[in-house]
Order: sequence, then C-alpha cells, then structure tokens
Amino acid sequence: MKKFTNVSDIGPLDIAVREALEIKSDKFGFTQLGRNKTLLMIFFNSSLRTRLSTQKAAMNLGMNVMVLDVNQGAWKLETERGVVMDGDKAEHLLEAIPVMGSYCDMIGVRSFAGLKDKAEDYEERVINQFIEYSGRPVFSMEAATRHPLQSFADLITIEEFKTKKRPKVVMTWAPHPRPLPQAVPNSFAEWMNATDYEFVITHPHGYELAPEFVGNAYVEYDQCKALEGADFVYAKNWSAYAGDNYGKVLSTDRAWTVDSEKMGLTDNAFFMHCLPVRRNMIVTDEVIDSDRSIVIPEAANREISAQVVIKRLLESL
Amino acid sequence: MKKFTNVSDIGPLDIAVREALEIKSDKFGFTQLGRNKTLLMIFFNSSLRTRLSTQKAAMNLGMNVMVLDVNQGAWKLETERGVVMDGDKAEHLLEAIPVMGSYCDMIGVRSFAGLKDKAEDYEERVINQFIEYSGRPVFSMEAATRHPLQSFADLITIEEFKTKKRPKVVMTWAPHPRPLPQAVPNSFAEWMNATDYEFVITHPHGYELAPEFVGNAYVEYDQCKALEGADFVYAKNWSAYAGDNYGKVLSTDRAWTVDSEKMGLTDNAFFMHCLPVRRNMIVTDEVIDSDRSIVIPEAANREISAQVVIKRLLESL
Amino acid sequence: MKKFTNVSDIGPLDIAVREALEIKSDKFGFTQLGRNKTLLMIFFNSSLRTRLSTQKAAMNLGMNVMVLDVNQGAWKLETERGVVMDGDKAEHLLEAIPVMGSYCDMIGVRSFAGLKDKAEDYEERVINQFIEYSGRPVFSMEAATRHPLQSFADLITIEEFKTKKRPKVVMTWAPHPRPLPQAVPNSFAEWMNATDYEFVITHPHGYELAPEFVGNAYVEYDQCKALEGADFVYAKNWSAYAGDNYGKVLSTDRAWTVDSEKMGLTDNAFFMHCLPVRRNMIVTDEVIDSDRSIVIPEAANREISAQVVIKRLLESL
Repeated sequence: MKKFTNVSDIGPLDIAVREALEIKSDKFGFTQLGRNKTLLMIFFNSSLRTRLSTQKAAMNLGMNVMVLDVNQGAWKLETERGVVMDGDKAEHLLEAIPVMGSYCDMIGVRSFAGLKDKAEDYEERVINQFIEYSGRPVFSMEAATRHPLQSFADLITIEEFKTKKRPKVVMTWAPHPRPLPQAVPNSFAEWMNATDYEFVITHPHGYELAPEFVGNAYVEYDQCKALEGADFVYAKNWSAYAGDNYGKVLSTDRAWTVDSEKMGLTDNAFFMHCLPVRRNMIVTDEVIDSDRSIVIPEAANREISAQVVIKRLLESL
Repeated sequence: MKKFTNVSDIGPLDIAVREALEIKSDKFGFTQLGRNKTLLMIFFNSSLRTRLSTQKAAMNLGMNVMVLDVNQGAWKLETERGVVMDGDKAEHLLEAIPVMGSYCDMIGVRSFAGLKDKAEDYEERVINQFIEYSGRPVFSMEAATRHPLQSFADLITIEEFKTKKRPKVVMTWAPHPRPLPQAVPNSFAEWMNATDYEFVITHPHGYELAPEFVGNAYVEYDQCKALEGADFVYAKNWSAYAGDNYGKVLSTDRAWTVDSEKMGLTDNAFFMHCLPVRRNMIVTDEVIDSDRSIVIPEAANREISAQVVIKRLLESL
Repeated sequence: MKKFTNVSDIGPLDIAVREALEIKSDKFGFTQLGRNKTLLMIFFNSSLRTRLSTQKAAMNLGMNVMVLDVNQGAWKLETERGVVMDGDKAEHLLEAIPVMGSYCDMIGVRSFAGLKDKAEDYEERVINQFIEYSGRPVFSMEAATRHPLQSFADLITIEEFKTKKRPKVVMTWAPHPRPLPQAVPNSFAEWMNATDYEFVITHPHGYELAPEFVGNAYVEYDQCKALEGADFVYAKNWSAYAGDNYGKVLSTDRAWTVDSEKMGLTDNAFFMHCLPVRRNMIVTDEVIDSDRSIVIPEAANREISAQVVIKRLLESL
C-alpha cells in the first residue's frame, strides 16, 4: 500500500479487518517495523481523536512522530501556478511539500473542505498535491470529501458487534447548528457499499449526497421507515451537497434527532457516531447513554484502523 | 497509587522523599517500566515548568508522551447534563474524557481555578471528572485548589537543604498585580501540615486561606514577627478566598515584598518560590540573587517529584 | 564543541563537511549517542524547516525532544535588570533560562531580529543570555544576525554539487514585499568567506551588509556583471542594514528577480535559496523549476547540518 485515501486502497475488507483484530490483540507486536522511521502529521484543521489515535498508533509501531499544526494565518501556502508572490502567502506548495517529505518517511494530512467551492473541495487538491509532490506514502487524516480512518474504524466496530452475518446498517442525517463537511457520510457510504451489508441512507429532501458516494445504497426519505429492523444506526450531520445549496444548513429540525422511540423501531440496534457529537441535537442523552451505544469502542478503534494503515505503509517502504 | 491530586495520595512522606532522592541519583534506572506506555498531558491552561518537567520525567521512565493543548476557544467542552447542545460547545466531557482515556495509559491534567465561582472551583470539577470517566490513573498538573507536584518538589527541596531536624518554614503572602489562584499556597500548607516542621503562614488581613488547608498552621498577621528565626521563607501571592472577595486583589502593598531586611530577621533562611516570580514585587533582586535563594534547585525538583508520581502510577497499572 | 552560533564554532570546514557526508550516508549510526539525552527546542518565532529538520536530526541520534513555542503574547520575558515587575511580563529570563536548562541536556533557540533597534539585534541578546545562564550547550536555530545551520547546509550542498575545485559563488539580493532580517545573508557570507571559493555579493545601493560579515567578499553593484561565470547563484532578500534605514525596504525592483536571462550569464550555475521563497519576486518559475535548481536538496541538507552540530555537542557533554 503506497497511499491511503479511500476504501479501494486497503484491498479486501475481510483481510483488513482480520489484520485489525490481530493488531488489537497485540498492539506492540510490530515495534521493530517502525524503528528509525518518522511519521509527520500535518494538520490544516484542528483535531482531538485523530491527533491522539494516529500518534498512538505510530508509537505502537515504534515510530518517531512529528506533529505540525499549520496555522493558516501564520503560514499561508500559495497553490496557484505562475503567480507573482507579492501578497500574504510566504511559501508555495511546490517547495513546502517536497521539503516536508525530505524530513520524514511517511505523511498524514488533515485538510477539511472549505464548503465554498464544491469543485475545489471534490478535486481533493491539498491531499492530492501531497501525494504528487512529497515523495512519501501519504494517508488521509480526513480530507475534503472522505475520512477513511474513521470509516475503517466504523467497519471494525460493526464486525466486532454484529450478531448477524449480513446486518442492516442505517446512516441517518441528524440536525446540527453549523454547516459540516460531507467527508464522514461520504466515506462511510463508500465503505458500507464495499461490504455485503444491507445499507440504507436516510435524510431530509435536499440533503442528497454526491452520487458517486451514494452508489448502490438504498435512499429512504422517511427516517422511521429506514430504521425498521436496523442492526446499526449510524447518525451524522452534514451540510447540503446538491446544487447552489452546497455547504448550507437547510434544516435543524429536531424531529430527525435519534431518540429512544426511533431506536425502538430497530432490531435492538447499536448506536454509532464518529464524535464529537451534539447531545440532544444528533441524539438524545437516553440513547447515547444506553448500553446499546458503542460510540466509545468505536472511537477506540481509531487507534486500530490507524495502526493497520501505518503498518501497511511501513511494509511498503 | 491510582491517582495523585493531594498529599494523602502519596502515603508516608519520609518514604516518598527517600524514593525521590533515589530517583534523583539515577534518573534512568527505570526506563523499562514505561516501555510501550503512553502518558497524555492535557493542558487547559498554559505552562512552562510543568510541561517540560513532567514530559522529561515520563521520558526518563521510558514512556511515550502526547501533549494536548486544549484551546478553550476552539474546543469547548459541555459539562452540564441534559442540555441541548446547539451552542458553541462541540463536545460533551462524557464522550471526550473516555475517548482520551482510550488512547493512553495515564493522564496528567492542568486546569486552573476560574476565580469566579468559589463553589465550582473548590469542587474540583474538571479533574474529578477525569478521574471518574477516563478509566486511567490521573494526576494533577495543578488543579483549581491544589498543585501537589509543586508541593512535593518543595518538600524534597527543604529536605535537601535543611540543617535542623525540625526547621521553621514560613509561607508569606507577597504582592502581585494580578489575581492568582490559591492552589499553590493551599497545597503547600497541606503538605507542610503533613510534616513535623514548625509551619507559619503570614498574610495581610483579608487573605485568609480556606480553613481545610490552613489546618493546624500558625497564622501570624505581622510578617516581621512570623519571619523571626525562620529556616525557610516560602513567598507566594494569592488572591482573596474569604467571602465575597473571592478571587479579588485586595492589596498590592510592597511593604510585604521580601527584602534583605526581612531576611535578616530569619535564621539565615533559604528563600523559596514556585516560579514564575515577579522580581521587586514578590522579592527583591538582592534576595533572589543571593546564595540563600534556592528557587532554581526547587524548580529542578519538579522533574523529580513528577518522576516519583508517574513511577508509582506505572507500578500500579 | 560547547556552543554553535557561528562559523568559527564548527572548526575546520573540510572536516565538518566530511563528517556531514558520513552522517548522510548512515543517519542512524549514532543512535546510542543520544540515548537518555533530551534536546529542548525553543521557538520565539515560527518555523517549518528548522523545526522539522532539527527534531528529525536529534531523533536520528536517539535523543528525546521537547518543543516549546514561546507565544510572545502569553509569556513575556523580562530582560532588564532591576525593574519592578508590575506590568505584563510574568517571568524574568534570570529564572526562566536556568529552569529550562535544568530539564534538558541541550538547547536550540530561535529568536529573530526585531529590526527596530540595530544595536540590540547585533548584540544577540537572547541567544547570548541562553549561553550565559542555561548551563547547557546551546545552538542557534536562527538568531538575530546569523543562521548558521542554514549556512552549513548551504556549504554541504555546494560541496556535493560543485564540479570545480574553487567554484564562483554569487549571493544576489532579490526583491520581497516585506522587511526581512539580515541573518541568512550575513551568515552565508561568513561561511563563504571561510572557504577558498570565489565569493561575490551583489545588491542595489543602500543594501550594504555589516562590514564584519562582508569581510573580504567582492561587492559588485551590477547584478549582471556579478553573475558572469558564476557556478552557484544564491538568491536572498534582506532589508537595509546601513544607517537610519536599518530594517527598511528600500526597493522591490523586480529588475533584480533571478530569471533565465540572468542565469544565462552564468557558467550553467546551480540556483540556491534557503526557502521559503517568493516565486516570481525572488526567482521566476522557470528558474526554480529548472533542473539546475537545487533548493530541495539544499533544504534536505538542513537535517544533516543539524545532525552534525547536535552530534558534536553530544560528544562534548
């Protein structure tokens, strides 16, 4: 594996999950693999879970880790070619990226969607430039349109908790006061579509995701209908993707909040969310505090998904 | 030892000091103990000495260290139960703390008093929630009402420099332009009261500390009288605790500054301060630059007190 | 070697370069040297290359690394003696520096020129105080008047790419929208003057560097004449040094930009710059993207120059 930005990079999912569970049972079994290897983690956006879990995963493998917080105010990168750099951007990515690559063996990048220019976001300009110019294996710590370390952790969690061979997984939109990127729902859909699970997406009209991510998922606009018989409920907010509404909040309707009544429609489903979660907006206290909520083991699996990815990239050096 | 927030956690002080001096003479004698163990240091407030000395202590023990600076503007934690999270707080501590716990083996937390709500500060809400929800051993890197790593370092320093079996230790209030928490003086009093030293506290009227910390200490409002025959002078500013004056600056009277004349009243006492110190407010240049000033060895012992605490917590894992 | 702030600290340059090339061919040959040793990197100014390359170099040597970003707003150091500290400066360097020294084995410091007070800048007050008070070996990660890790990396790069025994090296001023310190050109001149290269400096009138740095270099005000027959073109902007113009931008004349036509005057010279570089101000896209541009290998050598310096300081402990 030379890069990790989407589900196809990881290869067969059953093998990836098996490797994850092996690592989980022996986190320090590969500390020689990372000896004298350095991971550079670059954050264009803030992070809690990703920062800690990825750093921990790399240290589990014996790596050295350097963390660079790119304060966008202090260190603006020019990305256009041919411009006269007489403004506020002090460095061009054409220099910055290969230089960063020269000081490490592997790069993790976090760069969110700006939610202003759909074409720019969906081109994944930042992470693709790191892949093109850094000379190092690059993995996504959440990019503009995908969050594959999260989706891989979600998959591991479902495999650990499922009691049916082919569970029904329902991803439901839920309200949030601010506009959020589509990276998590896009990515979750991409990974679920790569399994043989029954996968349903439900959201209000206007919140349709990009067709390339929806794929063969069944889209049901009636949340209650969607939840019927579900084994896993995956709640998440996202802003609108379609047309001129790109990046906008169209609804904060708390009728979409996941509560006990809705969980009662499921087949005693587990509740999942990638965190951070707004309580009583996305989900009620009662549901997230119940014994069917698996948000903490789901977050804990972020260390595991990161460790599999970094291990694979180390093996390919 | 499963947590470290106050003097009672450390057990018999003579044994703790002996262990400290052993570690000081061989800092790298226990590097196997921390192998593949990770300390997470969480700062809700800024730090110089604590950050560096604690990180150094953990590395001396062979641990990996992750540092998280919680920028309160960027990442506000909801602490109340039952609220609809539609405001500026993106995550509830009920998720954030167990998630942080899942990525490490031990947690150090710094969270100062807000100095606005005495009850909230003296409940020690933040560190207690970490103890309750993280699932990991937690130690204080200065909490709202105590700074036990500082007090332990102070004790080690006194034991190193004392020439009498039972020295007289005087903690004196001194002026400062800004309102400071009571954590350092509270904690120092708690630790001194747990020794058999002669311990005296002196401060202007209105600066009485909380009774549970003053304990059996002798309180003398006349600074000169208090200093007579002292072997150690421990200077510190704090804001008012009592009544409606909680968190207020009642005096910046430089008549309380520790100068050579006052040191002349002592039995050739050593001068101590936890640092950072305002020169010529808390203490004159002449005193702090004298050969009786032990503020630098006192600060250096922060590495030692932290290493004892982390070692004990590692041993209990 | 007990400190590293200028060219004379490194000793004979041929030996230093030989050691650099040996290290470059075996970066992990000395990992035992830094075991249980800690480098403290202190940044008073922001940094990309220096931060990553120096940290990487120390880790290559098996050291532990602690990074302290001194936010000047949050943690102001008093530097004057005798003042009453009742303002916004919370700590005096007389305490801060020895305390920082007590938690590490070696200190790297970055502190830029303020460009307001020439005498203060050229006294190198900050780094000299670290040398005087820290009790540890100190090296410069760019000080007010020199950037020796950069100059050493530049020298290594020239030695790697030169095809003549005694190449002609031309340092040319080039335009930039903002006032920059003289540290890089001062330091480059100091190092070039210590070699037997032919060394020429060219810049507009008014941009004369301090005589102690110009030394025996040939100064040519006609850029085209200077570039004739050059083997290496080292471009850099700096603000004025002379007289009342200290720290000012006197010109942003793009007639001084290094373009293909000017490179055509050279003996097929290599193009060098310390980065970050303003494209189409300092140098045209065509030149920096050409196969004679060696800015990336030059930046990569920052890891090597840092590793030689840290190794030498470790050997002297």
